[in-house]
Formats: sequence, C-alpha cells, structure tokens
Amino acid sequence: MSMREKFCAGIARLLAEDCWLVAEERYDPTQNLAYESIFGLASGAMGNRGSHEEGGVKKTLPANYVHGVFDRSEAFMRELCNTPDWAKLRIFYECEPIGVEDGEPMDYLRVLDMRHGLLAKRYINRASDGRETRIEIVKFLSRAHPRCGAFRVYLTPLNYEGIVELENIIDATVTNFMDMPRFRVRHLETTEISALAPDGCYVGSKTRDFGLRLGTGARVTVHDAQGENRAKSRRFCPFGEIACEFIDADVAFDETLVIEKYACVCTERDFADPRTQVTLEVNELTERGFDAELAAHIAQYDALWAMADVKIDGDDDLQHALRFNIFHLMSTPAPNDPRTNIGAKMIHGEEYGGHAFWDTELFVLPFFNYVFPGIARNLVTYRYLLLDKARENAEKNGYRGAKYPWESADTGDEECPAWTVCPDGSCYRCYVAEYEHHVTAAVAYGMRQYARITGDDGFMDEMGLEVLLETARFWASRMAYNQGKDRHEILQVTGPDEWHEPVDNNAYTNRLAQWNILCALELLADCQSRKPDVYQRLWKKLKLTQEELRNWRRRAQIMYVGAHKGLIEQFDGYFDLPDAVITEWDDNNMPLMPKAFQGKRGNERCILKQADVVMLLFLLAHDYDIETQRVNFDYYEQRTLHRSSLSPSIHCMMGLRVGDDKRAYAYLERSAYVDVRNNQGNTREGLHAASAGGTWQCVTLGYCGMGIDSDGVLAFAPKLPSRWSRVRFRIVWRGTPLTITVTHEDVRVEAAGRQICYRVNDKPRVSEQSCDDSAVPSSAGW
Amino acid sequence: MSMREKFCAGIARLLAEDCWLVAEERYDPTQNLAYESIFGLASGAMGNRGSHEEGGVKKTLPANYVHGVFDRSEAFMRELCNTPDWAKLRIFYECEPIGVEDGEPMDYLRVLDMRHGLLAKRYINRASDGRETRIEIVKFLSRAHPRCGAFRVYLTPLNYEGIVELENIIDATVTNFMDMPRFRVRHLETTEISALAPDGCYVGSKTRDFGLRLGTGARVTVHDAQGENRAKSRRFCPFGEIACEFIDADVAFDETLVIEKYACVCTERDFADPRTQVTLEVNELTERGFDAELAAHIAQYDALWAMADVKIDGDDDLQHALRFNIFHLMSTPAPNDPRTNIGAKMIHGEEYGGHAFWDTELFVLPFFNYVFPGIARNLVTYRYLLLDKARENAEKNGYRGAKYPWESADTGDEECPAWTVCPDGSCYRCYVAEYEHHVTAAVAYGMRQYARITGDDGFMDEMGLEVLLETARFWASRMAYNQGKDRHEILQVTGPDEWHEPVDNNAYTNRLAQWNILCALELLADCQSRKPDVYQRLWKKLKLTQEELRNWRRRAQIMYVGAHKGLIEQFDGYFDLPDAVITEWDDNNMPLMPKAFQGKRGNERCILKQADVVMLLFLLAHDYDIETQRVNFDYYEQRTLHRSSLSPSIHCMMGLRVGDDKRAYAYLERSAYVDVRNNQGNTREGLHAASAGGTWQCVTLGYCGMGIDSDGVLAFAPKLPSRWSRVRFRIVWRGTPLTITVTHEDVRVEAAGRQICYRVNDKPRVSEQSCDDSAVPSSAGW
Repeated sequence: MSMREKFCAGIARLLAEDCWLVAEERYDPTQNLAYESIFGLASGAMGNRGSHEEGGVKKTLPANYVHGVFDRSEAFMRELCNTPDWAKLRIFYECEPIGVEDGEPMDYLRVLDMRHGLLAKRYINRASDGRETRIEIVKFLSRAHPRCGAFRVYLTPLNYEGIVELENIIDATVTNFMDMPRFRVRHLETTEISALAPDGCYVGSKTRDFGLRLGTGARVTVHDAQGENRAKSRRFCPFGEIACEFIDADVAFDETLVIEKYACVCTERDFADPRTQVTLEVNELTERGFDAELAAHIAQYDALWAMADVKIDGDDDLQHALRFNIFHLMSTPAPNDPRTNIGAKMIHGEEYGGHAFWDTELFVLPFFNYVFPGIARNLVTYRYLLLDKARENAEKNGYRGAKYPWESADTGDEECPAWTVCPDGSCYRCYVAEYEHHVTAAVAYGMRQYARITGDDGFMDEMGLEVLLETARFWASRMAYNQGKDRHEILQVTGPDEWHEPVDNNAYTNRLAQWNILCALELLADCQSRKPDVYQRLWKKLKLTQEELRNWRRRAQIMYVGAHKGLIEQFDGYFDLPDAVITEWDDNNMPLMPKAFQGKRGNERCILKQADVVMLLFLLAHDYDIETQRVNFDYYEQRTLHRSSLSPSIHCMMGLRVGDDKRAYAYLERSAYVDVRNNQGNTREGLHAASAGGTWQCVTLGYCGMGIDSDGVLAFAPKLPSRWSRVRFRIVWRGTPLTITVTHEDVRVEAAGRQICYRVNDKPRVSEQSCDDSAVPSSAGW
Repeated sequence: MSMREKFCAGIARLLAEDCWLVAEERYDPTQNLAYESIFGLASGAMGNRGSHEEGGVKKTLPANYVHGVFDRSEAFMRELCNTPDWAKLRIFYECEPIGVEDGEPMDYLRVLDMRHGLLAKRYINRASDGRETRIEIVKFLSRAHPRCGAFRVYLTPLNYEGIVELENIIDATVTNFMDMPRFRVRHLETTEISALAPDGCYVGSKTRDFGLRLGTGARVTVHDAQGENRAKSRRFCPFGEIACEFIDADVAFDETLVIEKYACVCTERDFADPRTQVTLEVNELTERGFDAELAAHIAQYDALWAMADVKIDGDDDLQHALRFNIFHLMSTPAPNDPRTNIGAKMIHGEEYGGHAFWDTELFVLPFFNYVFPGIARNLVTYRYLLLDKARENAEKNGYRGAKYPWESADTGDEECPAWTVCPDGSCYRCYVAEYEHHVTAAVAYGMRQYARITGDDGFMDEMGLEVLLETARFWASRMAYNQGKDRHEILQVTGPDEWHEPVDNNAYTNRLAQWNILCALELLADCQSRKPDVYQRLWKKLKLTQEELRNWRRRAQIMYVGAHKGLIEQFDGYFDLPDAVITEWDDNNMPLMPKAFQGKRGNERCILKQADVVMLLFLLAHDYDIETQRVNFDYYEQRTLHRSSLSPSIHCMMGLRVGDDKRAYAYLERSAYVDVRNNQGNTREGLHAASAGGTWQCVTLGYCGMGIDSDGVLAFAPKLPSRWSRVRFRIVWRGTPLTITVTHEDVRVEAAGRQICYRVNDKPRVSEQSCDDSAVPSSAGW
C-alpha cells in the first residue's frame, strides 16, 4: 500500500507517489524538533516550520519567518524574527485537547510531499475515556499568494458524537530561541490583538528596534462533507498576546468535519497598511477556497520542478535526498525581492539568525545560476544593494573599497558578533568578522560566475562591475608590502579553515584576492571597449585613476599566492605544524581526529576543519594543472575532518576531478543526507543551505562533470557512479533552456526541440551553435 | 522513617510530624490539577495554587488570586482574577529543563505541612543523558507579610557539574479557565514588563473593566551552602507579557545550590502606587531573608493553630482531614479587609468566580464566630458594606429593602448570570438569581448568630440591625397576600433544593423570611430601650414608620410557613410528586437515584438535591420539637441525594440531634474528605468552603453537641462516636477564650486558668459565671 492510500480521499488525491514523500512513520516526541525543520514549508515570502497545528506538544519550536524581517533587541545580532504563530488550531472535546501528545497517537503518519509542496498527516487520538478521533491535516504555504498559508483538518469522531470546540489561534507570545533560555529573545512588540471582519483574528506587531510593522490574520471555516457551514457559534477572545476565536460545531458519530484555516502575513516592507492588506488577502483567500488555492499552488510547483528536477536512475535513496535538498532550496528564496537572501539555515530555523554567508555565493548560487537565473539575479543584486554598507564596513576597519560582512542580514552591517556566548554561558572573543575576509572575494566570484552562466551582461554593467572594482580596491588596501621578499602579503587573516586563525598568507584568501583584482581589471578593460558609457560612469562614480589601477595590477602581480605547482602550503608555517594524518573513520565513513592531537588546540595541529586549499583549487580549476590539484587533494584530504557541512561536497567534486573517487560517494551522501537523516543532530536548528546546494553541485558539476571550460564554453566530463545508469536535468545556459541527459556512454543535450548527443570520451563541449544547429530530434518525455 | 526525614536538613527541620502533612507520594500527571488545589497556600491577602515551580507541566492551572481583584470582561460574571504567576523558577542545564515532567521524577514526595503553612517537595530528575539532579523546594505565602510569597530551592547535581541556568519568571500571559476553551477569559491587561532595582522582575497589570492596577515583583538569590552569592550573571529579558530574569550559576558535583525566590503582589486597593510598594516590599523581604521571614510566618501559624486546632483522639484519618479543612479555611480570609469575603471554592480555584454565597453565613461563619471572631466580623461587615447594592438589587427586582445577590463579588451586584453555558456550549436560562432568595435571610441569620456568639453588640448597633431591618423590609415586600387562605405566601421561589424551581411556599424560605422579620422587630425593640440614639438614627435613616413595622409584624404573623409539628411539606404540592425512596448506595455510602426516576426531570420526582426542610430544622432548632425534627429528618433523608457539598454535614448533625446516627459518620466523612481525597472529582476547581466549615461544625456542634440553648447559654449535648476517646478544641465565647474537652463521660471547659467539669448526662450549660467562678485548676498542656 502506498503512503497516500493511508489518507482519506480528500488528501490521498493530492499526494504524490512514495518516492516524492518524506515520511515520519511513528511519532517520537524527541525527534519532533528535527521534523519541524524537515517539514518546514516556504512560500517565497515566508517560511513556516512543521509544528503540529493542534498544539499541546512539549518540545516544539513553532516559527513563521518572513523574508527581510530582522531585529536585534537583546540579541548579539539582528536575527530573522519569529513572527506570530498563525498555524495553530486547537481542538477540544469537552475541554479535553486532541493532539499528537494528548494520549498516544495511533496509526500516525506524516509526510512532506516534495512534489506539491504539501505537508500531510493522519493519526487517531484516543482520549483517556476511550473516545477516538481521527485527525487528518494537509497544509501548504501558497506559492500562488506567497503571503498566505492554509491548512485543512478532517476531523472524524470514531465512537462518539457531540460538540467539537475549536480555537483559531494566532499566538504572538513567540520569541526566538524559545527553548534556549540563554539565547531566548523577543523581537516583536504586539501592537494589536483584534477580530477580523467578518470573522477571524488579527495580530499587529512591530519589530522592537526599527518599528517595522507587520500584520498576521487568520480565518477558520467549518463545514461538513457536503460543504454546509457547521460553525454554530464564534466568539473572539483576546488572551493578552494570543488572539483567539472560539468556534464550536456539532459532529455526529463517524461524520467528518472539514475545518480550514486561512492565514496571511504582510509587512510594512511591502504595504503601508499591513492590516488592510491582511484583511483583503485573508478574505480573498477564504473566498477562493482551499481547493482552488491549492490547485494554483501546485501549478507553481509543477513549474518549479519542471525546471529543477534532477533524475537519477538507479539510486532511489540519493534521488530522494537530492530532491529533498532541491525542494527546500528552490522553495526558500523570495522570487521578486532582491533585498533578501538565503540564510545558512534557509528559512527553516533560526540558527545563524537567517544571515547570508559566503555559502550563498559558493554553494547555493550555482544551483540558481543554472536553474533559476531570476533568483540568482536577486541573490547577486542583494549584494549590490548593500554595497554602500560594505564600503562603510571597509572604512570602519581601516580599508578602502568594499568589505562585505561575514554575516549579512537586512542592513548589510556586519552581524557576526565580536563576542559570543557558549552554551555554558562563558563569553569568548569571536575573531571571525575581524579576520575572515574571503567572503568579499566570494561575492565578486559569485557575480562573475552568475554573469558567465546566465549571460546577464547587463547585471555586470549596472551592478556587478562596480562591486568587483570596489572589492578589488578593498583587497589592494588589505595587503601589505614585504620589502625583504618584494611581494605583497595578507597578514593576520583567517581562511575557510577556521581552526587556524589568524594566520599570514592564507593561500586561499591571497589567491582569491588576486583573482578579484585581476578579474576586475579585465572586466573594466572589456567594459571600456564594449560599453564606454558604463565605463565612464564607473570611472567617475568610483573616482578611479590610472594610477590606482596600475597600483592594483602591480600589487596583484607581486601578490604572494603560494606555489603554482606542487603542494601548496595553506598558510605561512602550516607545514611546520605537528603533522599526522587521519587513519580512522566513524560509522558514517567520516574521519576521526588523530589520537595524537586529542586535547590539542587548532593551531597546535595540522588538522583542518574544512576544505581550504582544496576549495581554492575547486574554484580556480583552470589556474592549476591537474597534477597539482591531485597532489593537494591527496595531501589535504588526509588532514580534513569535515566539521563544516561546506566541506564534503567540495571533496566529492575534487576527488572526482583528480581521479581519486574512493570516498566521493561517501562525501556526496554526507552532504545529501545531512538534514533528511539529521546526521549531524542539528537539523532542529534549520536546514543546511550549503550542503543542499553542494549536493546539487556534486551531482551536476561533479558526477555529470558539467562546467565552463577555459574558453567559457559549457562542457561535460561525466563520471557517473556505476550504480547510476542515467542522470537527467535541466539548466538555462546563457538564456537557453537545455535538458541534459548523462549516461555512462554519452551526454545528450536538448534545446528547443533539438537534441545533440556526444560520446563521453569526446569531452563534450556545448558551443552556442550546437544548440541551434543540432539536427537530432528531441527525445520524448521529460 | 517519617516523611520529613526524606528531605534535606534545611527542609526537614521545618516540617511537622507526619500527622500534620498531606502527602503526594508519587507523581501522577493526571492528579496534578487536584493537588494544585489541595496544596494551595493562602496568606490572607492572596492565594497561590500548588503548581510546580519549575514549570514544564502539561496539565496545570497555576494561579495567584488576590482578595478583592475581580473583573468580568468577556465572562458571564465578575470573577476573581488570575493574576501574574510569580511562583515560577525555570531551571535548565545546557538548555534542558529540569522539572517533574522532564523525565520520570524519582523518589518523588510532596507534602503540605498544615502545621506551618508550608509546601515542600523533593525528587530526583534524571535527564535523557543520565544526568541526575536532586531538587527540593519549600514554599510559603507569608502570613507575616501577606502580600509576599517565597520559596527556596535546594538544587544538587548528583553526577555532573557545570553551569545551571535559571529563569526568574513572572508570567502575565495567564487567564482564568486556562484549560477550558469555552470559558477561558483574560481579565488583566499587562501595562508594564520591567526590571526591578537592584535586580528582579516586575509586571504591572490592570483589570480590563475597572482598570484596577496591580503590581507583581520578584527577586531571586542564588547562594552556596555557606551563603556566598553564586549568581554569576543576570540579564533581564522581556518576552512580551513574560518578565524574565536570566541567571546562571556554577555548581560543582554533589554541591547544593540554594536558590530563593521572593515575590510580592500589591494592588491599587491598598496602595496608590503598586510599583513603589512592590519594590519596597520585595527588597525588604529579600533583605530579611528566607529563614527570618519563615520564622515570622510560622509564628503566625503557631498562633492560628493555638486557637483553631481540634484534637480528635482515636481517629487519625478524620483528625487529619479535619485539620486539612481547618487549615485552608482559616488561611483563606483577609484578616484586615472587610471588603472581601470567602469564595465557595475559597481562594484555591476559580470555579464560581470567587463569589460569596449563603455558604459563607451558614457553613463557614460559625467556625469563625467561635474561633476567629475578628474574621467573622469582617465577613458580616462585608455584607453591610454592600447593603446599598442590595437595596439597588431589591429595587431593580421590584422589591423594597435589601435583597442580597445569590453570588456576590466585590461590587455587591448580582453575579449569578441569567444565562449559563453548558460544557457542550448550549446556553440555558439560569433562574437561580431570579428565584433563589433565601440568601438574604441567611445574611440576616449570620449576623444574628455572629452577635450571639461573639457578644459583639456594637456590630449590631452600627451595622447588623440596619441589615436585618432592610432584609425584613425586603421579605415583607416579597410576600403576597392570599385572600382565600388569609395568609401571606411567597410564590415562585427556589429553596435550597434547586432541583425544584421555582415553587410556591418553600417552607425553608418562608420560615426564614418570617424569622428575619420577627428577629428584626425584636432587635429593634431591644435597641430602642438599650440604645435610643442608635434607634433614632436608624429610624430616620431607614424612614421607618410605626405603620410599616406593624405591617411587617402582621405579615410575619400570618405568613404561611407550613406545619409546626409533624411532617413539613417542602413546598406546595411536594407531597403530590411521584414518590420513591432511596434504596441503593454507592461505594462511598452515598445514595443513588431511585431507578424509577431515571430520565425524569427534577420537578417530576420527589428526590432532593440537598437538605431543605432539614436545613430549616437545623437552623431554627428551638422552634420545632425534637419529634418533628426526627420525623422530617427521617422522611427527607430517604429522598436526598446530597449532590451538593452543603448537604452531608447538615445531615450528619441533624441525624445526631434526632438520634438517628446510623449514617452520621458517613456524612461526616463525605464532608471531611471531599477535597483531601478529591472524592467528588472536582477538587481541581478549588476547595469546598462549605464542606470545610460543615466538617468543623459536625465535630464541634454535631458530635460535641455545642450550641446555644434557648436561653442564649452555651450548652453541650455531646455524642462522640465510639472510636473517639476525646475531642479538644478552643473557642471564644462572647470574648472569653475557652478550651473545651469532650469525652464520652464529661465536658471540661477551661477559661483563664480555671476548669469546670460537667458530666455529659447533666446537659452541660456554660453560663458566663461558670467561667469566672469555677475553681477547678486547669489541666496541663494543650
């Protein structure tokens, strides 16, 4: 029996086949927090964790995050705010609550339908007096009206009848870090608790620091199976910061009551009067009705998956996990809002405050560059919009140009705190913001890659080049001349491997800084010839001078970037550290710290937290010969513990590239399953955006070997695992949608009804002509 | 091993011996709500339910009720408001909460020490990772400073060490009827959430209807066993309507941390600026410290018990239950506040809205009349202070004089609603306020009894007589002349037995109305001769005329009050109802509805809810010969189901009086154990004031046969159960403290060091001279 068959017809008809479902087949209260992240939904305007709608759960972190709504208050940094919880509908019979933790839930099943963006569950509640009630709920956040969410409850008393009591609740008592007393903080002030017209609840809030207003409204309808209204009374009750509408309804033995809750959240970011807009949208949503809204929502997911699905034949588990990562990744960003980005935990948890890190540019952006270039444009535009803040940030730190913050929220201020608190309450000085500067190069790199893949030269002219020039200017000011060695150096810096901080001449940082400067100069020269007006504008706006440009070039040229060939030292003195290699792996095939180093501090051992030199070689592949890449991969892989979710995917791809794939698949698994199997134990805090993007990269850029060759041409060097028979996916290459099919033998590229087939051994390169000229007819069915 | 020995020395030294403890020896979440009432504490200014201080409990109704703080808002009536919960102190270790429902509590024991007015508990919390923490808490509401409460936590990590995180919480999100969605209502608006100086939390609130302001403040100290401060950091965090002070403290393996929480609640009823007063009192309390405050508190309970204890030799269970009833009864009222009364559920739960009923005058007041005449004076003064409202209430209903409300809160308005809601949501018309008028006679009766027992003639002159005259005036206007029978009647009325409503000529009501009028006339005549100035004042103030007084007397004289001898018909036509007697009793020896009447409505059967004619005979014993009392008891007892907690105690005493004591002890048990054994299953809603007072009456007025004879002399007609060897108690008889010792053989009365001994068979009468003249030396030791 498929899982959907376990649901009533009303839900079963909505659900996809099992391979598209993520299932929780038994209710375990200790796993609830992780499932709240896994089952989080996102509409593009907001994210809503998969908390149980009926409430009464002991370990729960219900949350509704709205893109762009940040606040600091007593916290260490501006955080994505937990906004009032609209996704609650308490159910009672004679005052006894009905919920998953009110008695043992029987026949429990909860599924996330990734295909349609739905969360569905069913169980039977048995009360202490033997009453049994079947509860089935299906919930979605509408991608058709992304400020709206809704869920429908099928409530069936199996062995009794009477009056069911409902509470349509919007709970504004929420805080961030609700279950972590040391970090718990309230970000919103409640300004209004009131009834909506004609019925329903409304909560007005504003952020405590900036006073940004937002409104949350919700209505509930109650019907029988024939659609007749069954709400026999309604009463609005304000309970302090809890807006509650009490509703009751008669229900007969074995009859099913259909209860729908419709909600909307609007902010002053989009509407001057959130209350008016919320009222309008909630009433329109209720008018359209659940089925109509759901159909519109599913049509949007049809379109999303038509672009984003990656089909792997021969590996069901990985297929499932990959779709899980793609689902949450593509659901998260705001389609029309370049003022927002994607947090390190997406919009599914509040760890890292919803901040954008370099994770965006190097792990997440490639997926969007290739699959949803419109979203990619928002992500890079976000950085441009915060360029002035990056300029301020550089100046504040004594540099020129633009220095992007390590953690970025809505204002572009550095949100990475100088002091942090351990779970035990001890404070420690956090040097990340002070020393870890490579994010600024990642911003530049991301823009360059965006433009190369999408062909969006307009972005570079309008925004990207200015950012590259200002970041180049930053790097030029960040380096110091070493007279003895006649070279420029970057001292006191932290590279991606944060276990060694700060160091001198981190190879990754130096080389990316050099790349940033040279790329900016190259693009500026290109612009001068191609778009003299843009060139002129930038020249004036940035007060560039020939002398400054010459200075940049000179600095870049004599920049110390470590060896070009052979083993690259991660930073000055790294090779002098006590050395030992990894010889043991845990049950997940993940490396264990060599015994020699137990109890040692980071800078007393050679062991890396995550890819650093390997990351450099991954990003600037064309600048290092393959033997150099292999030597370094071999050396550093033996010394890397992958204690960041950013590391395994890079090692998967680099292993494949250098022909050392003995652990590539394990790295892929590590990346793919991090959340769907909660294999780091921290999924409760949100989903890992970087490993989601990294997983997509492993499959497409890694195993399918897709990339841009040194001539800027789309090329493939596939190397599928033996168990995979075929991988199929779509991309948009410089504006042209392509369908890519990779097998062990060949790579097929379809565009506009035409198909071209390359033998794998021919090292396929897809020139722009290929797409147009190919005469091979398209293969049927996607 | 005694129970106190199971506690650490700091608590053990405080606790009384086992016979004074009410124990919960195993934690059962389903019984928690009942224990919250049973373990409720009251200071005289407020009542605080016995919720677990550490929180995290699923079924809990934490509440702090403050005398005189009522509000209606969306409720059907003004209710005693649940005010912000100050008795919370959340405890965490690495974010994991420590509480009775966080893991299975081991070695759990919670005891109410009735002797000292303390609540103490201990258990060991085992976390999921095996960490074990011993928690011991002792809490009290200070009778020395009755706006203050405090508790001390002994926290001992048994197998770990580290930083313990504490949350000093005042939670203002509370509502009334928190777990009953249909009735849940918010009575307070939160006006301020702020930090106290030098540390601690403050919550400002005001009632939603009248805007009465109140303030709640709390400080927490953390020390080691040597008294050294161990709070290493404090941070105030406002979480909406939750004031929270986050504190952390290092604790070593097997070390005990001593955490104290000090709180104070003040209202605008007593202080113009609650915040200033709260700050002052909390700081003074913290300064005095836990041990000093506790010593002052216990000294107050020493004094209370010195007056109130009733020692029963030979019946440990009943002794225990009697003390339980006395403990809560004497703890509840406000010693210095005649503006407040005692609710039907005392101050331990919110059922009946904290309202005073006739329960006060007829069940509760006798205890205070005899034991705490100062409190009794407050209780009768309360009615005098609301006399104007009673006048309004009479006028509103078309009557003259003063009609007291069936349910009385702070304003004296009728709080008994005309419409009520069933648990299933159906509304029904509630006729109690419209028809059940006998409370007005009870008010008069209570004042008369108060004055007779206490000898407080001043009260009658200043207040009581005015009330008796106005209630007499009400009754005179309430009756109707039946020309055919040449008598006055009261039609459409409900007597104590509410299963027959409304009826004509309820014997109880008619006779009490007659008594009220005649008593008023008698006292007025007495006043005229004794205190002509008082008489003149009242004459003017009440605009009395000789004609009106003649009219009252005439009406009373020809009032129809049913038979004076033989069987009294409860109301016109009662004897015509289908008849059947009770033939079956349940396991608690309580009667079951005769099968013939199952499915019948109240007025289709003869069965009574509670004492009605029997209640009349109990109250006006001197007016009916003993044979009449016996006949009526015999008849009605066979037809009474005792579905009110007001009924068993009356039947106990009347059975003893008429010599039919076969069920007297069972009635006493029914009354005595109603809450301590939760034998009606509704203790969660508060404690039954009437059965508490009734239980005391059963022992003293019933078994010890204490009463006022027809000459107004204190007399005894004891009839102890065979298992009791002796009963010993204290009263204040017309200002003179007496110690009464009753055995099967004799009654000893001690006063001012003298003792007089009467043989039981001599029908002891304690004339005022006896106390002074007796030459028998006092027996040693009380």
